[in-house]
Amino acid sequence: MSVVTAADPTLDAVLAHIDADLDHSTERLMALMRVPSISTDPAYDSDVVRAAEVLVADLAGLGFDASVRQTTGHPMVVAHGDDISANGTPHVLFYGHYDVQPVDPLELWHRDPFDPVIEEQNGVPVIRGRGASDDKGQLMTFIEACRAWKAVTGKLPARVTVFLEGEEESGSPSLVPFLKANAEELTAEVALICDTGLFAEGVPAIVTQLRGMLQEEITVTGPAVDLHSGMFGGIAMNPIRVLCGVLAGLHDANGAVSVPGFYDGVPEISDDLRASWEALGFVSETFLAPVGLSDPAGEADRTGLEMIWSRPTAEVNGIWGGYTGAGFKTVLPSKAHAKISFRLVAGQDPERLHKNFCDWVSAQMPADCSVEFKALGGSRASQMDTSHPIFEITRQALSDEWPGEAAFIGCGGSIPVAGFFKSILGMDSVLAGFGKEDDAIHSPNEKYDVQSFHRGIRSWARVLGGLAAS
Amino acid sequence: MSVVTAADPTLDAVLAHIDADLDHSTERLMALMRVPSISTDPAYDSDVVRAAEVLVADLAGLGFDASVRQTTGHPMVVAHGDDISANGTPHVLFYGHYDVQPVDPLELWHRDPFDPVIEEQNGVPVIRGRGASDDKGQLMTFIEACRAWKAVTGKLPARVTVFLEGEEESGSPSLVPFLKANAEELTAEVALICDTGLFAEGVPAIVTQLRGMLQEEITVTGPAVDLHSGMFGGIAMNPIRVLCGVLAGLHDANGAVSVPGFYDGVPEISDDLRASWEALGFVSETFLAPVGLSDPAGEADRTGLEMIWSRPTAEVNGIWGGYTGAGFKTVLPSKAHAKISFRLVAGQDPERLHKNFCDWVSAQMPADCSVEFKALGGSRASQMDTSHPIFEITRQALSDEWPGEAAFIGCGGSIPVAGFFKSILGMDSVLAGFGKEDDAIHSPNEKYDVQSFHRGIRSWARVLGGLAAS
Repeated sequence: MSVVTAADPTLDAVLAHIDADLDHSTERLMALMRVPSISTDPAYDSDVVRAAEVLVADLAGLGFDASVRQTTGHPMVVAHGDDISANGTPHVLFYGHYDVQPVDPLELWHRDPFDPVIEEQNGVPVIRGRGASDDKGQLMTFIEACRAWKAVTGKLPARVTVFLEGEEESGSPSLVPFLKANAEELTAEVALICDTGLFAEGVPAIVTQLRGMLQEEITVTGPAVDLHSGMFGGIAMNPIRVLCGVLAGLHDANGAVSVPGFYDGVPEISDDLRASWEALGFVSETFLAPVGLSDPAGEADRTGLEMIWSRPTAEVNGIWGGYTGAGFKTVLPSKAHAKISFRLVAGQDPERLHKNFCDWVSAQMPADCSVEFKALGGSRASQMDTSHPIFEITRQALSDEWPGEAAFIGCGGSIPVAGFFKSILGMDSVLAGFGKEDDAIHSPNEKYDVQSFHRGIRSWARVLGGLAAS
Repeated sequence: MSVVTAADPTLDAVLAHIDADLDHSTERLMALMRVPSISTDPAYDSDVVRAAEVLVADLAGLGFDASVRQTTGHPMVVAHGDDISANGTPHVLFYGHYDVQPVDPLELWHRDPFDPVIEEQNGVPVIRGRGASDDKGQLMTFIEACRAWKAVTGKLPARVTVFLEGEEESGSPSLVPFLKANAEELTAEVALICDTGLFAEGVPAIVTQLRGMLQEEITVTGPAVDLHSGMFGGIAMNPIRVLCGVLAGLHDANGAVSVPGFYDGVPEISDDLRASWEALGFVSETFLAPVGLSDPAGEADRTGLEMIWSRPTAEVNGIWGGYTGAGFKTVLPSKAHAKISFRLVAGQDPERLHKNFCDWVSAQMPADCSVEFKALGGSRASQMDTSHPIFEITRQALSDEWPGEAAFIGCGGSIPVAGFFKSILGMDSVLAGFGKEDDAIHSPNEKYDVQSFHRGIRSWARVLGGLAAS
């Protein structure tokens, strides 16, 4: 259903160059993937730095004024193309992140997560390894598009600043201070963010609303020391029992989140948006089938797209306590722990919800238990103003490249940087990416379709061309 | 409150020898403790064998016909003293276990668990290290008592078989087959088991009823793979949520266990026993205070002693699922796990309860989750017939040795071997031991009071003397 646009010989030459150079593009991506830049685990700190250095070297080689920029956490990469704003082309800030998720459980990977390879999956070639899709493969689609424009025309068709983060998978502690300290340098007309997915096979999408996030860790303490359940079982309060009681009550019988005030200020989506989402033909069972599920688990009176795009959620992301090794240990543990995340939508304030959550949990502690909270960060949801012309330029470029026409959609994930670009730099963000639901991001055996990578590069090349012509 | 008994110059000489030799006795115990015989972890298999060999060498040196006996799991130690039954003295089988619990969390130990030392705790000397109390220190009290009798009189005053197990902390998989295969060799008139504790400071006890045990491991599976909670959170069922729901419902609001049929056949204790337990002056708050608790957590209408001795219980001993490392991972996991143990009392059938538990859990699975069970073993509760004269001999010997008079009590822990001695070999067991509530068995910084060790040796020396005179 692509719209036919006027032929552009320069763009055609750039696209042809991309096709011819694909093997080299893929090899450059795999070189980046070999660096295990797991940002949440301090054991990999030097690898995170190394990944930033690899990118700076590559961008400098393309003529960018590129540098590794220190923070109190992991470094940022900032690279400026030539300032050609005088030509009338807009200035865009491209964002991606070069850090990756941890790889455990390692035994479920069928090969080394940091030794990437191209192999077949379901009959099509994929790039396999940690970060293939999230987000090294996606950020390289943009860099490769720039490389192709430079190779064919000797310059970039628009003014581009590349801004790459190394803390996206660990709560971005340095992001806000860095944006504030470098606001003038980083402010462009609009941001391009490549960390999202296709809507469906062959159907690209631009995300115009994103859920925010609140991350909590709680520790329930009962006895002062681990006890023998033979001696104390039955008389001493077990903190796992208390923690399970709290977590079992996190959702009510209808699937709604029980924290008081959780839904205060949560808006209903507009009738227009509801109609356009209905037109997407989303079927929950079809969405769930590839991961072995069939039954939507959210609020009973909501559609599947509302559950993943416009309704807030609570999930337990991790739980641990007592003896978890081989065999058995009849311990009655002193402590039990859980990591819990809330996906937030417009109207929800992370700070207020953090307080409500702490109060709600604390009120459930029996006399002999106490609870400690570790706040792991929060971010508000984002809603884009789609009236800036670049939204239409991008929609057109994506529709030209892909079999299906590009849609404006919501996203259940949190990309807090889009909110910070708006609140700190005053920029809206165009969120376009080429991931697929079966990419297994954050999971064992992550992959990125070679076609996603190839068409992704071509997509950004078209967007850059559209900016020059705008 | 000791009963005054007639002087026995031979016994006095044996006791004096024990006093004089205490430093050597302690050094022999610490040599055994240096062998990290953790039976539940295959990484320590060769250490378990080594501990058995150390004991066989020691017993052989005392004139026992001692051997390491292979099983399909960890070996048994069997050692026979001279058969002097013709003299009219009874044949006793002494039981202890030379394996120990795992040591995690290792960071909470203030020294190497397997590098024992004598140090002060609360103003009294203690032997510090894994196994000090459970059960290496306790089993060595008996061996040291035998050593003293041999040293002073050149022989043992009764016919003794020593039987030491290396799988007590890992479910004793080889015990029943070994008892069945060697029933004739191991059957004595009565068993002496040293794996229990004092009732209170200076007050020894003989346990006449023991809880049994049922151990379960469950794994709840939701999605086929770990999912990203941004993409699937809100629509995909989280197995941690389901597991927490099951475990939160394991106890009702009154503290009773919810598994159907759990209390079928559970007897009330006799009025006599209830009166004698009341006379012990047990105060739940006093019992709980040393571990930082104050509020009995069991069935609301039961006394503290019932909660730990005569009522069945359910405890979650371990729980794990999702991401449990440093930082945060917004994973919606495929699986969540828990280890659960039930303490059983007379009248409860582990096999029936296993089935009831599995049925009860399975019935709670939502459409998109499945549950797997790993049965980790079970044993019935035990109740002793205290009419055999050795119960009174032991009660007298303990009352002579300790400041307080010995009491017949219950025990909340499981010592399945006592049940198997009864069911397979037809023997009752005299359970007497010298552990203290603050020994931190199964916990970091385990210890055994030097006084427990010293008086424990003297106690068994008196029991052996009592057997000779009986």
